[in-house]
Amino acid sequence: MTLVHNFSAGPSAIPKIVIEQIRCDFPNWNGTGMSVIEASHRGKEFKEIAQETESNLRLLLGVPKNYQVLFVQGGASLQFSMIPLNLSASTSVVDYVITGSWGKKAAKEGSKFSKVNIASDSIHSNYTSIQNEEDWRKSANADYLHMTSNETIGGVEYNFIPRAKNIPIVTDMSSSILSRPVDISKYGLIYAGAQKNIGPAGLTIVIIREDLIGKARSETPTLLNYKTYSDSNSMYNTPPVFSWYVAGLVFKYLIDIGGLSKIESLNIEKASLLYEYIDQSEFYSNPVKEDYRSRMNIPFLLKDKSKEEEFIKQSHRAGLVNLKGHRSVGGMRASIYNALEIAAVNDLISFMRDFENNNG
Amino acid sequence: MTLVHNFSAGPSAIPKIVIEQIRCDFPNWNGTGMSVIEASHRGKEFKEIAQETESNLRLLLGVPKNYQVLFVQGGASLQFSMIPLNLSASTSVVDYVITGSWGKKAAKEGSKFSKVNIASDSIHSNYTSIQNEEDWRKSANADYLHMTSNETIGGVEYNFIPRAKNIPIVTDMSSSILSRPVDISKYGLIYAGAQKNIGPAGLTIVIIREDLIGKARSETPTLLNYKTYSDSNSMYNTPPVFSWYVAGLVFKYLIDIGGLSKIESLNIEKASLLYEYIDQSEFYSNPVKEDYRSRMNIPFLLKDKSKEEEFIKQSHRAGLVNLKGHRSVGGMRASIYNALEIAAVNDLISFMRDFENNNG
Repeated sequence: MTLVHNFSAGPSAIPKIVIEQIRCDFPNWNGTGMSVIEASHRGKEFKEIAQETESNLRLLLGVPKNYQVLFVQGGASLQFSMIPLNLSASTSVVDYVITGSWGKKAAKEGSKFSKVNIASDSIHSNYTSIQNEEDWRKSANADYLHMTSNETIGGVEYNFIPRAKNIPIVTDMSSSILSRPVDISKYGLIYAGAQKNIGPAGLTIVIIREDLIGKARSETPTLLNYKTYSDSNSMYNTPPVFSWYVAGLVFKYLIDIGGLSKIESLNIEKASLLYEYIDQSEFYSNPVKEDYRSRMNIPFLLKDKSKEEEFIKQSHRAGLVNLKGHRSVGGMRASIYNALEIAAVNDLISFMRDFENNNG
Repeated sequence: MTLVHNFSAGPSAIPKIVIEQIRCDFPNWNGTGMSVIEASHRGKEFKEIAQETESNLRLLLGVPKNYQVLFVQGGASLQFSMIPLNLSASTSVVDYVITGSWGKKAAKEGSKFSKVNIASDSIHSNYTSIQNEEDWRKSANADYLHMTSNETIGGVEYNFIPRAKNIPIVTDMSSSILSRPVDISKYGLIYAGAQKNIGPAGLTIVIIREDLIGKARSETPTLLNYKTYSDSNSMYNTPPVFSWYVAGLVFKYLIDIGGLSKIESLNIEKASLLYEYIDQSEFYSNPVKEDYRSRMNIPFLLKDKSKEEEFIKQSHRAGLVNLKGHRSVGGMRASIYNALEIAAVNDLISFMRDFENNNG
């Protein structure tokens, strides 16, 4: 099989030029006489790419000076525990807005550590919409308000930033970070697992306002305390060097193509093409309310559910892979992150048209 | 610079044949039409390598049926917290034997969660020896006894397994795992960060006796609970797929060359050559008591400390890199893990001889 179009929700496609660079860097990375996975993280060469990686990410996202960028392990799911341990007391209230599966998981884990108030839960729309902020039942004195910028499984994405007087907004941006410009200063903490728009799994990026660091509960494990990372340039112990290195290559690539404004316009183009095709069709449908449709993850259903298996099989044979929806919801899902080229979306639409013609 | 001999303590050298396989697997891994870092961890192909990786590790180490093998993130340092949270109550006593820097760190973190009894501390020998077990001050009812099989910084390695009636022995085997056969059944829990003898940083292997799983404290974060990994084949959330894949290649390589008995004889040969050379010299010295000298990490000092910088500079120029001792102890250190070939040790000895002749 030659190279495919990979619609996986994560781990997911990585820009071709980055993959080629990785290949070139084995076995002799940067003239060091060894590959990057064999280099000491305390060595001059690795420290240089670590610093450059952070500064390029700051540049791309316009991270303000009073925010730190931390490189953590454990995936976004470990943040579900780290956030309450670092930002709240066991007796205090924390607000969660649930717009899909990941927000629900975050709230469940949060409730092990603090009093969770569900300020809003989109269950009434079967997670195809986001409740108007005026109708949220926010607490007066929550230690933070947690949201999920983009729900990877349901394909629901915020088109606004909640208003919160003096309450830090904490957001899971795993599947939408770097897909568009973002006003970091509106958030207290942003976190994202790497395996969508950043790089290989095993790395989580945390962007945190400095005044929120150093308040962890005394029983917090050292490696779950943000201060540990802040005090050590995220090198308290050996970091996941390979994921860090690839993230650095991805950030450089994004700068080279024109930054987040450029990638946003490409992402709008890709998503619009696919949504427009789905909407004009009687054969396919997307359940999400138009205002809250994700640009990154586009789930779709067949009118005739019995044809789903055949759709997956034939699309795979056509080199369009990982289109199966998440096991919890079924159907199909096309994840079209930054690395997915417009050709991939066009090929998918062609395939969908042919499949409809043959099965409609 | 062509390829070098890499004496780094971790991240460290990886077998050449494995590095070559990684290069071949970009951009098209295993005929999937994508690289391994882009593949879904829930896909058929990745699940297959995950299973094979575990079964090959079990084969190599002879892991008994009543032990589970877990794949965790966060490095050995996260185990310093996970162990007390999973194996002890906050009111109970846990024993630690300190034979160097890592054991000291483990005990310090452990004391955040339980009552730590230091059963032995080699400080009296400046961590160049291990106290006789008869002289340890063990607790009668400790929840576990923690030891460090090989101290990476000091180069001190156990040549015995402590006796412990009904008390699980927990050991940090980060820098000696897979360097020799081991009787797993003598331990309750073995853990090891990947970046020495296993693969790229970002993965920790935990081998745990089944009856020790499922006893975590209620406040344990989900991803710090061994049961979470045991219940999900270590795929509760997205695992560090690249490190997992490389570990699989390393395990296959070890099986191919003849398993742990074969690698042990090679390791004995390499370490003996270097120790013998150091011992016969008046110019170099190793401070560790002969019985407890590490086969993996060999620190050495120059009689004339003022020549150290020159030694590091010249050896680097000769393609012998990362020989600088840990910043906490100074001097030199040659880490000669499994992947270091005997030629590397011979080249190092030749260089040391020349350096002595020119500077002695």
